[in-house]
Amino acid sequence: MRLDDIGEFGLIERIRRSFGTSSKKAPIGIGDDAAALCVSPGQSLLATADMLVEGVHFDLSTTDLSSLGWKSAAVNLSDIAAMGGTPRSCLVALAIPRRITVEAITEFYRGLNTLLGKHHVALVGGDTCGSKKDLVISITMLGEVPRRQILTRSGARPGDLIYVTGALGDSAAGLELVRNADFGMQIGKSKKEQRRSAAIRKLINRHLRPVPRVEWGRKFALSGCVSAMIDVSDGLSSDLGHVCEQSGVGADIHGDWLPLSRSLKSAQGLSRDAVGYALSGGEDYELLFTVPPDRERKLLKLRIDATKIGVVTKGRALRLLNEQGRSRPLRASGYDHFRTAGRGTGR
Amino acid sequence: MRLDDIGEFGLIERIRRSFGTSSKKAPIGIGDDAAALCVSPGQSLLATADMLVEGVHFDLSTTDLSSLGWKSAAVNLSDIAAMGGTPRSCLVALAIPRRITVEAITEFYRGLNTLLGKHHVALVGGDTCGSKKDLVISITMLGEVPRRQILTRSGARPGDLIYVTGALGDSAAGLELVRNADFGMQIGKSKKEQRRSAAIRKLINRHLRPVPRVEWGRKFALSGCVSAMIDVSDGLSSDLGHVCEQSGVGADIHGDWLPLSRSLKSAQGLSRDAVGYALSGGEDYELLFTVPPDRERKLLKLRIDATKIGVVTKGRALRLLNEQGRSRPLRASGYDHFRTAGRGTGR
Repeated sequence: MRLDDIGEFGLIERIRRSFGTSSKKAPIGIGDDAAALCVSPGQSLLATADMLVEGVHFDLSTTDLSSLGWKSAAVNLSDIAAMGGTPRSCLVALAIPRRITVEAITEFYRGLNTLLGKHHVALVGGDTCGSKKDLVISITMLGEVPRRQILTRSGARPGDLIYVTGALGDSAAGLELVRNADFGMQIGKSKKEQRRSAAIRKLINRHLRPVPRVEWGRKFALSGCVSAMIDVSDGLSSDLGHVCEQSGVGADIHGDWLPLSRSLKSAQGLSRDAVGYALSGGEDYELLFTVPPDRERKLLKLRIDATKIGVVTKGRALRLLNEQGRSRPLRASGYDHFRTAGRGTGR
Repeated sequence: MRLDDIGEFGLIERIRRSFGTSSKKAPIGIGDDAAALCVSPGQSLLATADMLVEGVHFDLSTTDLSSLGWKSAAVNLSDIAAMGGTPRSCLVALAIPRRITVEAITEFYRGLNTLLGKHHVALVGGDTCGSKKDLVISITMLGEVPRRQILTRSGARPGDLIYVTGALGDSAAGLELVRNADFGMQIGKSKKEQRRSAAIRKLINRHLRPVPRVEWGRKFALSGCVSAMIDVSDGLSSDLGHVCEQSGVGADIHGDWLPLSRSLKSAQGLSRDAVGYALSGGEDYELLFTVPPDRERKLLKLRIDATKIGVVTKGRALRLLNEQGRSRPLRASGYDHFRTAGRGTGR
């Protein structure tokens, strides 16, 4: 079905009926000039906005619309997670070119809503409009956090330990694989080939449907053992740089401590080594955080999948240490929208 | 200066230094994963998002960047006004093509910030990224309103009087004039010519720098004399249609009661008559609202520039009455993003 068959207001009505929610927390949702929401007493409101642009952040030849919806929600949920907050409601603004069908837009909302549903987040509003050429997605995520539990980028102190959740680099490797039309050729029938293709699928899935670490972020905030936190969206080196800059500190990272998935280590046909993807790949949506040494035991008791990768230092230098303890400067080599020539994926 | 001279993070830092604010109400603004805000007890949070796309909502050959920034803020402030709320904070997401300079983006923020400043709204966050072709602006405006004062679209009842603030149609006429390269020719030196060119400038200004009716919306909400409200963004007939649909009512509008500015009535070289612009022009950002008859005296005491244009009826019909009392159906002829072929301006 073409969008001009149902028109702008027909589309809004469809979205409202299928995916809109109103609740005690959001008594007025889609369909008025603004959504009206409740914020619990003693809580700070969190607000974050992220844009995804066709040809810059995504390519419709390498993602399905449902995954795109999922990912659009994920990148914003991850920002709320990085503040230690609980996501509550979401606004979605779309600029839609004529070639996109109503079914495709419905698929987008289905993917988005699947992930929002897992986190009990209400879709409360937004905007839909036309676009001359590219599909543009702009999501605003609102959340809340008890005032004293907010985790910012500026709390890291020299001596704090640097941790990261999950594994790094999978998403960037997945992007490279999904772009390589030949990767399908590797899906064979022998056991070894099956293992290989499973690994490839895992990496691609980590790129298309990243899992935001919302519950973990909340646990870190509640535990009081974390001094600074950020999500890894631009790439480890770049995001670590943000924390160091805002905290006025430096960092030593051990290259051989970086958490790498079995899939990444075993994947063939990649252009870089696993550590390269882990350092500057981006779009991992893992949480990077610092822990004062006397609170490390408390952190370990949380039993969250997190790995120590280095230590906060005085001064402003970011250094990468190898197994022999030799160091080299770690440059922020993540994605910069105005400096990189179309890597095709942002943060 | 080119954007790649300073990079994405250079641009963000510039915006933060020049325009970012943090206050008691917004203790964490630009520069972290999300903004943290305070909402006063007993207040509902209002949230609205609007997107402006180059080639669809605006054309850089007919607007300067500062006016574009102003307007981007205005359309969102107007949505908060239409709920009876007070705007508090703003997130700005931009997708920027390479041809746009740092100075142009700075001009955009300057215009935006001028209007935000008038309403004491803090710029607390957002996103900046690259775009292959078009400049895309997505603004999220957050505000608050005492819970019992929220004005929605659904409260109109048969017999309620229909009012609109200010004058209608100026913006649509201004758009037509600004697109007509010849309008400059009319700026002459005789008294008559000066009056004409002043009128043209006024109409164009109403298109480029609309004034959101924030204070008036707040006064209506406080007074308790308004039963339903919306802002006129898509066009009077279309927005009246939204109110009627959500309230389950109809409306009779008197064509000869519509408030028309002297500039609109005197402007020459327009393709339609003044009432045509007023009914379906769009982008007026005036407030359209309904008042129960027994509260009309209270409304008049507010001494706000508002004009009675009709009455709410039973049934669902929207009708336009002429001076002789003859009626014809009033069709929602405002802008639909997926049905109109590039009018070049949305809502």
